Amino acid sequence: MPAVIEYPDKGEDTMELIRIPRIMQDTCRKHLQKGRSIGFVPTMGALHDGHLSLIRRAKSENDIVVASIFVNPLQFGPSEDFASYPRVIDEDTIKLRELGIDVIFIPDNSLMYPPGFSTYIDAGPVSEKLCGQFRPGHFRGVATVVAKLLNLISPTRAYFGRKDFQQTVVIRRMTRDLDINTEIVVCPTIREEDGLAMSSRNRYLSAGERAAATVLFRAMSTVSDGLQAGGTSISELKKNLISEISKEGLITSIDYASIYNPETLEEIKESGQLKEVLVAVAVRMGKTRLIDNLIVNLT
Amino acid sequence: MPAVIEYPDKGEDTMELIRIPRIMQDTCRKHLQKGRSIGFVPTMGALHDGHLSLIRRAKSENDIVVASIFVNPLQFGPSEDFASYPRVIDEDTIKLRELGIDVIFIPDNSLMYPPGFSTYIDAGPVSEKLCGQFRPGHFRGVATVVAKLLNLISPTRAYFGRKDFQQTVVIRRMTRDLDINTEIVVCPTIREEDGLAMSSRNRYLSAGERAAATVLFRAMSTVSDGLQAGGTSISELKKNLISEISKEGLITSIDYASIYNPETLEEIKESGQLKEVLVAVAVRMGKTRLIDNLIVNLT
Repeated sequence: MPAVIEYPDKGEDTMELIRIPRIMQDTCRKHLQKGRSIGFVPTMGALHDGHLSLIRRAKSENDIVVASIFVNPLQFGPSEDFASYPRVIDEDTIKLRELGIDVIFIPDNSLMYPPGFSTYIDAGPVSEKLCGQFRPGHFRGVATVVAKLLNLISPTRAYFGRKDFQQTVVIRRMTRDLDINTEIVVCPTIREEDGLAMSSRNRYLSAGERAAATVLFRAMSTVSDGLQAGGTSISELKKNLISEISKEGLITSIDYASIYNPETLEEIKESGQLKEVLVAVAVRMGKTRLIDNLIVNLT
Repeated sequence: MPAVIEYPDKGEDTMELIRIPRIMQDTCRKHLQKGRSIGFVPTMGALHDGHLSLIRRAKSENDIVVASIFVNPLQFGPSEDFASYPRVIDEDTIKLRELGIDVIFIPDNSLMYPPGFSTYIDAGPVSEKLCGQFRPGHFRGVATVVAKLLNLISPTRAYFGRKDFQQTVVIRRMTRDLDINTEIVVCPTIREEDGLAMSSRNRYLSAGERAAATVLFRAMSTVSDGLQAGGTSISELKKNLISEISKEGLITSIDYASIYNPETLEEIKESGQLKEVLVAVAVRMGKTRLIDNLIVNLT
């Protein structure tokens, strides 16, 4: 097997667990100096099939695969679910080992944000739309931790799910603007059979909420069909989207639900020259906040 | 000569001039993959002996030396001297070639800040003291461009002059917080024979102003002597510092002149347990703003 011959120090069944940022950095530097490409999948753990699809893609495109599990305090607001966010490290580690990744990075908060830490990255207007309006500081926290992880790991490619669409726009903006030498690869949203986008936060849902949550994909699909069929105005489609979601009694509130320019994240009134548009929603069901989106091809 | 044998593709008298960020990044990556260390000296050009001392230090400690010349618009305020900042690229290039550096990077504005650029790095409280109070946004511009340059060049070590003391604090904070894998080396301020700190902005001074500017080093030296001799209170020393500088009629105004904690940049009332203190001044002489500082060892 060529992989074994090429990297004799790396057996097929070994996965390195690293907790110290400096050691992570040294390890990756050694791989890069040997000319190996590194694929990186940053996660907050509680891994589902969406995460695993990113890992498989990373494995297929790189010599070395690194995954991180870090529930990043910087991207949670004071009234958000940082404390209750699901933490199932043992379960996650087994899944990653089964997929045969090379390195799992699980840093301590105290090493990621030591006393005196005070540097933040702001990716500008794309951070302030959509979820940014409802989660102030969230994307600043995301941009900052992702920059740190990319600097520690120097990946050739980093993999993100399209479910967090705005996050991918922020990270692309940030890496491009700061000349970070990593290709950002955005992978399709993975859905349950009934259409619900996989998310670690789905664990929060009661059985009733879980069933009700399918309204998001249904309502967005109706918009998507309408956009592709033509003949219905954008403002009519938006109205229908909100009305269909609102009909579901277990939805407590709608943060946003509309149609956007996928590059600027600005709400659109007509599709104009756009080849693609973004249908995106964020709702609350009790204490749980759910987001989802579809990219609709108009050509 | 070992350097020639080791790197046969690199003659002693060749210096590569690179203008395209992406090419700069590829060039440096190749050096790093060959196991070569890179020393980097970022400048805004109009090179003086202070810059050249950084280059010599970089040459003595690294396999490859890269210098950049880039007058960074992001660090100038709207009423500052961006347009008039001295630009003498040909003169600078000759100096760098004579010192035998490997690569000179002179990027265009439009490639460093293409349309849509919107990401900024804020290094927190250390950006807001001293010069930060008088040049809002300055250190945000410095942190952002330095992060970009470090991501493009991936230097093993980057060299900065102590004359811009606050800049070195901001950059150390930023590189540490963002896990940028570069050692920040801070080198002594180089002075003219009469004590004036070398600065590209000294070119702005009339003969009279040039003579008057020596008051800064004289006044700071008096404070330094007083601190080391003991017996005079910090508040008395501060008062004397301002009074001595004020006596010089060509000094238009004093932005600040005091004694600070060199880590936090906070003004101090007593030296307490500090092993070193920072004496720092910023003044205006007509249209020219001059800064200088001394680190005083108290042990």
